[in-house]
Amino acid sequence: MGTFRIALAQVNAIVGNIEANRKKVEEGLRKAAEVGADLVAFPELVITGYPPEDLLLKPHFIEKSRAAVDDLARRVPDHMVAVIGCVDEDEDIYNAAAVAHNGRIVAVYRKHYLPNYGVFDEQRYFRRGQEALVVQIGEARVGISICEDIWYPVGPAFWEALGGDAHILVNISSSPFHMGKLGWRERMLAVRATDNLAAVAYVNLVGGQDELIFDGASLVINEQGQILARGRQFEEDFVVADIDLIGILRSRLHDPRRRQDTIVSGNGDSRVRIVSIPWDNKRKRSPIVISLAPTLSPVEEVYSALVLGTRDYIHKNGMRQVVIGMSGGIDSSLTTCIAVDALGAENVHGVIMPGPYSSEHSWQDAEALANNLGIKVFYLPINRIYETFLETLCPVFAGHKEDVTEENLQARIRGTLLMALSNKFGWLVLTTGNKSEASTGYCTLYGDTAGGFAVLKDVPKTLVYKLARFVNEKAGKEVIPERVFTKPPSAELRPNQTDQDKLPPYEVLDAILSAYVEGDRSVQDIVAMGYDEETVRKVAWMVDSSEYKRRQFAPGPKITHRAFGKDRRLPITNGFREWEGVY
Amino acid sequence: MGTFRIALAQVNAIVGNIEANRKKVEEGLRKAAEVGADLVAFPELVITGYPPEDLLLKPHFIEKSRAAVDDLARRVPDHMVAVIGCVDEDEDIYNAAAVAHNGRIVAVYRKHYLPNYGVFDEQRYFRRGQEALVVQIGEARVGISICEDIWYPVGPAFWEALGGDAHILVNISSSPFHMGKLGWRERMLAVRATDNLAAVAYVNLVGGQDELIFDGASLVINEQGQILARGRQFEEDFVVADIDLIGILRSRLHDPRRRQDTIVSGNGDSRVRIVSIPWDNKRKRSPIVISLAPTLSPVEEVYSALVLGTRDYIHKNGMRQVVIGMSGGIDSSLTTCIAVDALGAENVHGVIMPGPYSSEHSWQDAEALANNLGIKVFYLPINRIYETFLETLCPVFAGHKEDVTEENLQARIRGTLLMALSNKFGWLVLTTGNKSEASTGYCTLYGDTAGGFAVLKDVPKTLVYKLARFVNEKAGKEVIPERVFTKPPSAELRPNQTDQDKLPPYEVLDAILSAYVEGDRSVQDIVAMGYDEETVRKVAWMVDSSEYKRRQFAPGPKITHRAFGKDRRLPITNGFREWEGVY
Repeated sequence: MGTFRIALAQVNAIVGNIEANRKKVEEGLRKAAEVGADLVAFPELVITGYPPEDLLLKPHFIEKSRAAVDDLARRVPDHMVAVIGCVDEDEDIYNAAAVAHNGRIVAVYRKHYLPNYGVFDEQRYFRRGQEALVVQIGEARVGISICEDIWYPVGPAFWEALGGDAHILVNISSSPFHMGKLGWRERMLAVRATDNLAAVAYVNLVGGQDELIFDGASLVINEQGQILARGRQFEEDFVVADIDLIGILRSRLHDPRRRQDTIVSGNGDSRVRIVSIPWDNKRKRSPIVISLAPTLSPVEEVYSALVLGTRDYIHKNGMRQVVIGMSGGIDSSLTTCIAVDALGAENVHGVIMPGPYSSEHSWQDAEALANNLGIKVFYLPINRIYETFLETLCPVFAGHKEDVTEENLQARIRGTLLMALSNKFGWLVLTTGNKSEASTGYCTLYGDTAGGFAVLKDVPKTLVYKLARFVNEKAGKEVIPERVFTKPPSAELRPNQTDQDKLPPYEVLDAILSAYVEGDRSVQDIVAMGYDEETVRKVAWMVDSSEYKRRQFAPGPKITHRAFGKDRRLPITNGFREWEGVY
Repeated sequence: MGTFRIALAQVNAIVGNIEANRKKVEEGLRKAAEVGADLVAFPELVITGYPPEDLLLKPHFIEKSRAAVDDLARRVPDHMVAVIGCVDEDEDIYNAAAVAHNGRIVAVYRKHYLPNYGVFDEQRYFRRGQEALVVQIGEARVGISICEDIWYPVGPAFWEALGGDAHILVNISSSPFHMGKLGWRERMLAVRATDNLAAVAYVNLVGGQDELIFDGASLVINEQGQILARGRQFEEDFVVADIDLIGILRSRLHDPRRRQDTIVSGNGDSRVRIVSIPWDNKRKRSPIVISLAPTLSPVEEVYSALVLGTRDYIHKNGMRQVVIGMSGGIDSSLTTCIAVDALGAENVHGVIMPGPYSSEHSWQDAEALANNLGIKVFYLPINRIYETFLETLCPVFAGHKEDVTEENLQARIRGTLLMALSNKFGWLVLTTGNKSEASTGYCTLYGDTAGGFAVLKDVPKTLVYKLARFVNEKAGKEVIPERVFTKPPSAELRPNQTDQDKLPPYEVLDAILSAYVEGDRSVQDIVAMGYDEETVRKVAWMVDSSEYKRRQFAPGPKITHRAFGKDRRLPITNGFREWEGVY
């Protein structure tokens, strides 16, 4: 027994663009042949992109995707096996892995466990598979599974290792990123490897798709749970590693747990199909350089996710340039930095729109940031427009006090100006609101929420500050002016306004929001955690009563384990009022 | 054997408002006792409202809903059985029907078939049930099932009738409305009755919930497939009917199909649990008046759905008054009529906002309609604000031609004025765009799409005209001025503009949209149906490239079998471009 060379093509697929994705796979096949890989694996549904959503309800879409897989299979040589994520159609459709060799598809694995929680809707689309699959490639026995399948300790990967004696468990994934997921995933995969005494080769999609970001970080782990190779996070990569088959046999002789285990029969999952591929074991190959990409720090990880999510949303939608309303505050400052990293300074346009209550430091700080980043800014003061609105509304508003109406008016004038620039020059408007604001509804619909992509939609305010600090640290200089960090946050829509007029301090707010929005804890629970009852009730009320606003927000990248959007599906019309009695 | 008196409480529940829903059920129990019903049934998930969505992920919500069911069970007397839709929790949660009698829950049925297509996400929330249930109430054997369950010919209702000898199949539903569904549903239920030689008692929810409308029309059908009683459509109702048990026996003796059938065992669905309830068969009861509500015409049905959906969205969200931008066009005219029928003329405010390209007939027609409906209107001309915007933008726009930017600017000024009125007076803005516009993106984001509820979002333009005609017919006079029907549709955002400058004629457009959006047909298919290829490609391109706009729309009532929103989940970032090559 020798070694088995495995390659993982961590590609950035585009949902729906079957031809672009087909080319990426073709390129991966070529690279794999160059490095002499025995097997190359591509992510889950790489042909359609992930998630294809209701494109899967179009028969002609499925037909095109099948033609692409057939074309790719014809390109797989006789000295290589390719595992390609695709839709398998046979009267019904399956989330599948086509195993191709020597010009044809030799086996198809169908995903067993279809996730239907969080952001996932796979039971809307697919029928589940019932058979595990082991491909015998020379001496190596390779078990195939798809994403969710390997998250179950007794699932297809288990049956393949135990019932099919697989040495290597190949798992093709499209696993969306959230903070902290990487460590959790790597730990789980290492345990699967050691539990099954099998190597794990995990290939993950990379790239942004609407609100989801796929983080790559593909892995090869040996049967001892050691990470042999890791792909880069948030970038395309091509990972190659040699798996020591005799090492696996040695481990299995030393660790007899597998002998004690028995396959409990009685459900379809325990059926393992073995497919043998004719193989020349004697091929000579040059040694390879194995890449073990380092993992990023928690803040760097989020920053990279936001950059990738923003870049892919803009570029995959056929745009290049963006425009941002720069207020001199921390949110628009960070958004601008992310945009510059995602798109290049030449593609980012800043607009400073001073109004009746803007401070001098606001445009100074915005201007300083623009200079530091090397982007151009426009000045569009809103005062005259604002006055004309007030004059027009005067006959109707006469006798009524000033209130939030006039504040929202200023925000909507700014939104309208940004959209006018967007229309005239084809720039996408990036909105700058953060998750704390989105949660509490501390924002103006069609005002500061107007735009095509909401970069910080899932980033709590306290994390916004950390990310902004990271920007300056990364640059080794003050890109975002220090005053932006130290001045009290304010929308500057009335005299001497600060966010804390209406909101609790952000440290408290974000902790309550995390428990209420992400953790689904009750008001009572959160009070028991030590927070002031009136504050908790007020925050819960703000969150519940601003659901209608969030429904009209632009999409924005998911970075927490529970983002607004597909991840958190609450009714707008909602009579469950835990906060009642106080608000 | 005698008769069995069944009552169906067709109530309008509010999602999340457990206490309000509990009271509705309490009231239904009282009414049922008054009419001497043996059994009263309430809709699916009546306690939580339907669909409760991610409220189901909150343990304290489930706890409260359970407490409400326990309370209700205590109120059920010894001479009645109640079937109440609720969440059943036992380590995991189930979509359930609690069967209550004499102060306690005597059995719980758990829904087998959890719909996860279209607007449904039940596999996100519930574990499926595995047992069918027949309740023996004196001489009557009553099978229980929930909504989707009875849409399967060989499902729990079948097992209950065949294996459990049920005479009556009670199905509790929360079945969302779309055009044509009623006839389909009644036909299916009649066939279930005759196939199983059992009476069917079907209780459906009524009311609007965000984008869904539940249409009521609860039914009692005898074993011959004859409709004995029908609840009103789009209104609360309380339906009572007597079921002739001996008639069922007679039918079964005459039609021996059941004897030929055998129960194919081997899956959990065929397990029928029989629960017997002690019963006094000798009770005397007064005769009842059975109500058989007529069904509405197709156009009346949609109109009623829109009125109910609008009223419930506004009222259930704690609001009373709305404001509408009245352009003198057919869409805003119809929207205003619906609003008046939903909320009363005193709660509807019209705003006429003439701009540089508005015709005289526009405000005249809007004014005439307002007079006919008895609503007040405001005049807010936009010209001065528009000019001030242009002056402010002049330094940036200098040297660039006028284009859609200036058109959108006018629309956004109007949106901002409406929102200012909304903020100042607490009126919800109703948007007036129709489905043809929403499909093609022929609308301005943050302009005419700005608002809280989009009444015509799912109504194609050709149907808008029919509904508007219906308004005048219903009133027996010209409510909507005749000129509104005859003038060419125009947004009036530039000189001599009409919709047909950019769109094909609405008869053609709506036919293509129906095939493309609702039918998921390919461009090729639609061309084969006889439409001009360039037109079809252009329409498909417009639909695909305006997905980002629709994501930021207000909710609006679903009336077709495929509405935008939860019903049609397409990615924004989408490289599947069937229309490519032309646009």
